[in-house]
Amino acid sequence: MDPRVREHAEVLVDTCVDISEGDEVVVSAPSVADDLTVALYEKIGERGAIPSGRGVTSRATRAYMRAADEDDFQESAVGMAMSEAADAFIGVRGATNTFEKSDVDPGKNAARRKANEAVMEKFMENRWVATQYPAPANAQDAEMSTEAYEDFVWSAVNKDWDAQREHQEQLVEILDPASEVRIVSGDETDISMNVDGMIAENDWGDVNMPAGEVFTAPVPDSVEGTVLFDMPVMVQGREVDDVRLTFEGGEVVEHSAGKNEDLLTTLLETDEGARRIGELGIGMNRDIDRFTYNMLFDEKMGDTVHMAIGRAYEENVPEDRERNQSVVHEDMIVDMSEDSYIEIDGEVIQRDGTFRFEDGFEG
Amino acid sequence: MDPRVREHAEVLVDTCVDISEGDEVVVSAPSVADDLTVALYEKIGERGAIPSGRGVTSRATRAYMRAADEDDFQESAVGMAMSEAADAFIGVRGATNTFEKSDVDPGKNAARRKANEAVMEKFMENRWVATQYPAPANAQDAEMSTEAYEDFVWSAVNKDWDAQREHQEQLVEILDPASEVRIVSGDETDISMNVDGMIAENDWGDVNMPAGEVFTAPVPDSVEGTVLFDMPVMVQGREVDDVRLTFEGGEVVEHSAGKNEDLLTTLLETDEGARRIGELGIGMNRDIDRFTYNMLFDEKMGDTVHMAIGRAYEENVPEDRERNQSVVHEDMIVDMSEDSYIEIDGEVIQRDGTFRFEDGFEG
Repeated sequence: MDPRVREHAEVLVDTCVDISEGDEVVVSAPSVADDLTVALYEKIGERGAIPSGRGVTSRATRAYMRAADEDDFQESAVGMAMSEAADAFIGVRGATNTFEKSDVDPGKNAARRKANEAVMEKFMENRWVATQYPAPANAQDAEMSTEAYEDFVWSAVNKDWDAQREHQEQLVEILDPASEVRIVSGDETDISMNVDGMIAENDWGDVNMPAGEVFTAPVPDSVEGTVLFDMPVMVQGREVDDVRLTFEGGEVVEHSAGKNEDLLTTLLETDEGARRIGELGIGMNRDIDRFTYNMLFDEKMGDTVHMAIGRAYEENVPEDRERNQSVVHEDMIVDMSEDSYIEIDGEVIQRDGTFRFEDGFEG
Repeated sequence: MDPRVREHAEVLVDTCVDISEGDEVVVSAPSVADDLTVALYEKIGERGAIPSGRGVTSRATRAYMRAADEDDFQESAVGMAMSEAADAFIGVRGATNTFEKSDVDPGKNAARRKANEAVMEKFMENRWVATQYPAPANAQDAEMSTEAYEDFVWSAVNKDWDAQREHQEQLVEILDPASEVRIVSGDETDISMNVDGMIAENDWGDVNMPAGEVFTAPVPDSVEGTVLFDMPVMVQGREVDDVRLTFEGGEVVEHSAGKNEDLLTTLLETDEGARRIGELGIGMNRDIDRFTYNMLFDEKMGDTVHMAIGRAYEENVPEDRERNQSVVHEDMIVDMSEDSYIEIDGEVIQRDGTFRFEDGFEG
């Protein structure tokens, strides 16, 4: 077994869900990630905890969903019982074919997700983490060889997360008390928003692995200006390129895309919240140095920021403040590595990807 | 996918556990049996039932067991919750290496089995079935090519079980009211036992697939005579050949083996019940035409009988009768295809493998 698999397991068990003696741990992983499952079970055994496997294969799920009638989808009593009995949940993604569900009726997909929403929420009341195994089909989506993708994934995952957390905390300390945030990149992007009273969060691995961003929510009607997103956005499995949004009073008033603009239009028209920004995130995982069409990685890419149209996260918005509501949460990424800066309350805190608290910063 | 996989799934879902709308079905299958999992999920979807996967891989279990301390093995609360919420359980065996647990301390194996005994019992209170997927490593154990083993497994499994059940019921009707059973084979085997008041069961697929035997229990102290078992017996993963047992008053008074006799001795000395016969079974699945070192198949082989030393099954013994108790239940097989007969209450009911109710029977 590649020794990096065991490091990956150790990060998940110790950093992300902090397993200790007697914990009931549910591991959900596809066959293609068997090596990681083995390493996880070993680590769980070392900690004196009790593992259970929750089987998932996309081929089997597809077969079930095509065969069943839409109104047969009910909450799984077995899934709910597992989630209630578990202390921690480790969800491993890994595909043999990322288009496995491409011939499942989207209505069925939605109905099944809805039927199991409460089960997933119950799992998320426990400690939980979602991670990625570098399977060949995922490498294919990333347009990389399997070996190069393994290097990429394990570089992003297998690191000193205590050090990374401390590093990111420096940005939290700037962003959390801030009011005005302005993001400027190239000739086209100049966008401002107010984050006054919102809570900046440090993503150090407590729910996603890789982790590596600091994120908050803007005041919904405070966003002004234009942003051009440099990386493609995947909507319903299709690529929308060169998304350009202009905001006034928090709302998108103009939009365009270089490719599949109609999908962007549909997305923005989903509901009222879909035309407002729900999240501002700043990527800080420099081992994620390329776009791979996988948001678990892309949004943490070093030298980027991302904004999500749609739903704001509860953890960013105090209970007495307005939280943007939507069924949509679509992250879009701006490259900040060149000809770019982030200004907070009138002060530049990042230029061309380098933060104020890092060597080489030129205010 | 091989069309026989879908037939296998249909037998399991419809014949064995009889799935209908709204049933919560737990499927436990290793990666190597992914095709069968897909077919099972499809069939479960068609029936309007709800599938859940229970992950198992012997590599992961081995890693967990080696890493954990023996006293860390506790009943899995997640496993118990699943078993309580389930209506039916389908357990698929299939190996990538049948020696995967060969370097796990046997004491740990026993401790873990004991810790999870209640969970397995709970699953067995529901409808359940255990089956075999024809994986390459299982073919290897059977000393067969994978393709030939696939033919073998699916011939044994994919058949008209209603017809088979009716066929077997003819023997149940003879054996259930019987008293004296005598089994004679070649020069060496001539053994008698009393089954008066015991319950003859028809194994048509309600717990094992393949099924295909009729079985009962002898009155514990009634067994007299000598039996030579023609097929090897696997004890702790080692082969014991040419087992010969002589009984007086129900107890083994002489024993020998051509190979590994010491293992046989240890087995017989396990406890008092281990020296008595707990089961008499008559194999009736003629598509199982060879010995494959897998008791799920071997004991149902056509033209054979088997006797198990040790524990008798509850279903064979009325509550007011003595039931042989033991931690051992070791099946051993006698070939009845030549120079053999079964006599019940003085009447020959099978000669050279052919039953009284079949064409070609020569009383």
